Amino acid sequence: MDLTRTDRRIAVQTPSGPLEIRSILGIGRNYAEHAREQAAEVPERPMIFVKSLGALCLHGEDIVVPPVARDPEAGGHQTDYEAELGVILAAPLRDASASEAGDAVLGYCCANDVSARWWQKQGSGGQFWRGKSFDTYCPIGPAVVPAADIPDPQRLSVRCRLNGETMQDGTTADMIFPVFDLLADLSRGTTLDGGTLILTGTPSGVGMARTPPVWLRDGDRVEVEIGSVGVLSNTVRFG
Amino acid sequence: MDLTRTDRRIAVQTPSGPLEIRSILGIGRNYAEHAREQAAEVPERPMIFVKSLGALCLHGEDIVVPPVARDPEAGGHQTDYEAELGVILAAPLRDASASEAGDAVLGYCCANDVSARWWQKQGSGGQFWRGKSFDTYCPIGPAVVPAADIPDPQRLSVRCRLNGETMQDGTTADMIFPVFDLLADLSRGTTLDGGTLILTGTPSGVGMARTPPVWLRDGDRVEVEIGSVGVLSNTVRFG
Repeated sequence: MDLTRTDRRIAVQTPSGPLEIRSILGIGRNYAEHAREQAAEVPERPMIFVKSLGALCLHGEDIVVPPVARDPEAGGHQTDYEAELGVILAAPLRDASASEAGDAVLGYCCANDVSARWWQKQGSGGQFWRGKSFDTYCPIGPAVVPAADIPDPQRLSVRCRLNGETMQDGTTADMIFPVFDLLADLSRGTTLDGGTLILTGTPSGVGMARTPPVWLRDGDRVEVEIGSVGVLSNTVRFG
Repeated sequence: MDLTRTDRRIAVQTPSGPLEIRSILGIGRNYAEHAREQAAEVPERPMIFVKSLGALCLHGEDIVVPPVARDPEAGGHQTDYEAELGVILAAPLRDASASEAGDAVLGYCCANDVSARWWQKQGSGGQFWRGKSFDTYCPIGPAVVPAADIPDPQRLSVRCRLNGETMQDGTTADMIFPVFDLLADLSRGTTLDGGTLILTGTPSGVGMARTPPVWLRDGDRVEVEIGSVGVLSNTVRFG
């Protein structure tokens, strides 16, 4: 590879080394405006759910909507985007303070908490796992930005663009439960392993709250942009 | 070790080799009588939730109820037992038939889906993960019995004894979603990895449905006995 020296300055995001993500937790309704847009109460305590590890996919890979998530007898097609700040733990946490939680963060990434709404709500007795866990329903990337490069995770913009149009435009400053407090709270009585990825909730503007609702279609391009973390881009494909 | 040959016949359960459990899924209300005892509807589709991997503990180890699960400001102490048949996958499943699902089963174990009811219901916006995931809240054992030794998983008794008294006395014949059908259904659009442990639901008789409710106390001995699978025994300790 030939490199030419110039005086241009470019932003470089340092990806971390090899990393095994061991589990994925999500937080529901962590932005008050998003709770209100779905006529839900603003929660007094974090609402925690899980996504399957098999749902992970990376920047540039396809979000594949499987037949079961388009089944007319199961709510039909209702797959939605959710732009979120992802937080990855380097070290286990248990009964941690917020400060200890901050020290355990490996880094941050953009995440799309892709959600099949019927399966999330009606299709599994109200438990979110199924509608959040179809394969490829958890794109993350484009890199893991080291915690040291993000001095304050509560000062990041959170945006989602669908085919170039801005659908969500929020800020982590509006989180009901800020990242380090959230991690500390979750660790009470429960060990959060190193390699845990936490999706910290989505701001308002999701497809299900629109009139008419907006569902991801075959060929759609979805981008999640988180402040200085980067832009995660994926294309939707009906599988 | 000296061995003496006799003509006594004893039942031997062959434990499997080293096994890494990679995730734990639970099924809610998979026995109609248990759905009714909590005034819940009998589900039309499986209700799936997740337990943390950190909740795993083994036969003979203590179930430790942490301070957060006894917090008077968080529902007070409401930790309950649930005797269940555990099923462990040897191979990944995706879009599998019931027959393929049966072929992917590594073996069976007894499991206790220990549940902090307030955290399961009120403490996390109705999502079960938190109340099901305190460390040690998923005892399994005493061994993993190979699938070949359990020709029909729908013909097993499921019992729970608390300090010697029978609290649950059911049979897997009463499952709403039998094991292989359940696995096939869960695998639609979602890869279930090898090493997935599935807790297949509990029969009636849990502590929360009793008048007055029965919660696990410091020093209690809880036994889960599943047909020919074995007896899992654990002692409760307030940590």
